[in-house]
Amino acid sequence: MTVSTRLQSFYSSASAPYVLVVRLQDIRWLTGFTGGTARLLVDRRTQTSYLLVDGRYVERAEQELAQAKSETHVVAVASGETMATVLAQRIDGEIAVDFHHITAAQLRELNEEFHVVEESGHLDRLRRIKDAVEIELMTQAAAIADKALQHVVSEGLLGDTEKQIRNRLDAAMRHFGADTVSFDTIVATGANGARPHHEPSDTVVELGHGVVIDMGAEVNGYRSDMTRTIRIGEWSPEYAHMFALVREAQSAGVASVRAGVQGSQVDAVVREVYRRENVEHEYVHGTGHGVGLYIHEEPILSPRCTAVLSEGEVVTVEPGLYRKGVGGVRIEDQVVVTGTQCRILTLSPKELSCPRSLRTI
Amino acid sequence: MTVSTRLQSFYSSASAPYVLVVRLQDIRWLTGFTGGTARLLVDRRTQTSYLLVDGRYVERAEQELAQAKSETHVVAVASGETMATVLAQRIDGEIAVDFHHITAAQLRELNEEFHVVEESGHLDRLRRIKDAVEIELMTQAAAIADKALQHVVSEGLLGDTEKQIRNRLDAAMRHFGADTVSFDTIVATGANGARPHHEPSDTVVELGHGVVIDMGAEVNGYRSDMTRTIRIGEWSPEYAHMFALVREAQSAGVASVRAGVQGSQVDAVVREVYRRENVEHEYVHGTGHGVGLYIHEEPILSPRCTAVLSEGEVVTVEPGLYRKGVGGVRIEDQVVVTGTQCRILTLSPKELSCPRSLRTI
Repeated sequence: MTVSTRLQSFYSSASAPYVLVVRLQDIRWLTGFTGGTARLLVDRRTQTSYLLVDGRYVERAEQELAQAKSETHVVAVASGETMATVLAQRIDGEIAVDFHHITAAQLRELNEEFHVVEESGHLDRLRRIKDAVEIELMTQAAAIADKALQHVVSEGLLGDTEKQIRNRLDAAMRHFGADTVSFDTIVATGANGARPHHEPSDTVVELGHGVVIDMGAEVNGYRSDMTRTIRIGEWSPEYAHMFALVREAQSAGVASVRAGVQGSQVDAVVREVYRRENVEHEYVHGTGHGVGLYIHEEPILSPRCTAVLSEGEVVTVEPGLYRKGVGGVRIEDQVVVTGTQCRILTLSPKELSCPRSLRTI
Repeated sequence: MTVSTRLQSFYSSASAPYVLVVRLQDIRWLTGFTGGTARLLVDRRTQTSYLLVDGRYVERAEQELAQAKSETHVVAVASGETMATVLAQRIDGEIAVDFHHITAAQLRELNEEFHVVEESGHLDRLRRIKDAVEIELMTQAAAIADKALQHVVSEGLLGDTEKQIRNRLDAAMRHFGADTVSFDTIVATGANGARPHHEPSDTVVELGHGVVIDMGAEVNGYRSDMTRTIRIGEWSPEYAHMFALVREAQSAGVASVRAGVQGSQVDAVVREVYRRENVEHEYVHGTGHGVGLYIHEEPILSPRCTAVLSEGEVVTVEPGLYRKGVGGVRIEDQVVVTGTQCRILTLSPKELSCPRSLRTI
């Protein structure tokens, strides 16, 4: 799908005559512009669109839009001009915005000049189903993360700090071709694993630890997302049992993903394993989320998720268990939804362990 | 200053009985919590505050608040509960929010349950003046970036791609002690330098290029920010003249920074150099910004900046010139405002060049 096709579908998919798009990855998806500050004004009646950028981004916008064969016009907003002035010249009717993407202050400012209507969640829905190019980029990103993890684990983790491991993983992802990392890499060893969103610290990896590694690579804006829990030496029976449960829950979750299934069902399959063992209270987050130009996209696979999965969606399945004082386990795959099942993009083995000997640096 | 002192000043510095703080670094500044999702409810009448976090962050919140000697209470929001329910139990009066920090949808939701009033920009103002600990952390962060730049430049840049150089800079900052990088490192060589916010590409550094490097390290949440333009071989007279002008403008800008000066004056000093040479149109951004827990904080030093600088503020001075087809130059320092002048944190030499020979890898 080209940016023009996407813009065409956006022109015809709702009724507000004007739309102001403010979320950067929506703008990227519709125009090809990858810069850090922009607004996109869409005129559905004349099927015309304008990318509003300041002086820092004019050259880049012109290049990138030309490269993407975008028909959107680049409009340079001068430093003295207000957004309202620039918009007013091009607007003659209701303007729609996504209330989840603009601040209360921005809405108030728009309301002073225009008749604003709400068009929330629309681009999230359009962007849910990925085309072949988008899936190919995420396949590449996932393969890069696989290579990086294998490389770093094969070098050994014992005796290193979480930060050192994080640094090696990030460097390896870039070495293997990532444009950058797709989110702040998580490395949580031993008891730190009990915190699902632990930040890498100076804690040292010891024998008996599980090391939770949550990582992803970014290629052309598209992101991968994978978690593995690495065994260092021998695990306690308690921790090994936690791992076995997460492994079972994660496999069951992945097996339940296919077109036509509601997000809450995938979550329920996972939660059922934990309920059987009376550890559901140690599962403190949702089961997954869409991935694309953002690391967290619609749908969010939780008990309240009413979204039904469709072919071409890319989601994660990432159950965990977190026990204070003991540690945590999480296993996560990123998968493409197909008609009959799903295709896993993140191919690293689920059971990874490290040599006992200290790495020689 | 401890988090308790900060919270005390926040209790007494405005009149709304309740405040909902949603911006993460504001919450960190007031409580010590560094996690990725939270709300802080402040009750000014009883001088009590509540950190609302979901299951993923409860353990971390308790640890971090204890470590920071925070008196804020940690409240776990269960997955079935809505924010409104949790808030309603603790609110009996007007609740203030910063309209620049909440979305239009969030404001609407709050309005349905509570009497919401605006308290915008208040925490930005409180956070502008940094205490000794904050300045020390940014001094450390800047020193790390200095070391990393020196290390990478001494290895040579000629023949490498922008991405390779970015990767080496990021790895070096972490090697020298950064928790992470403080923003996406910019490396722009040759004609790419004409784009102030260029993203590192596969473009190779060649003789005659200027390489614009904009980088920063993060230490305990506090960020450094520095730009240098590195000479590779010999420059054309045109580009060398651009560099000389930016060098002059930047020195003049830094020399103008002191307590009592209005932000627009610093900007005017820089712009005056460019006006004299009729290149003001090639200076397409503002002159600087505050830095702290966020890379961009108040004040923004632009022609419209009415903020007056005070002792203890930390700002950047970063004029540039951007000429399409030729390239760009930017030089940026991060400085602490004092009574009589400013103290520069970013100590890398302004005139850096690389050996002509190709680096041996």
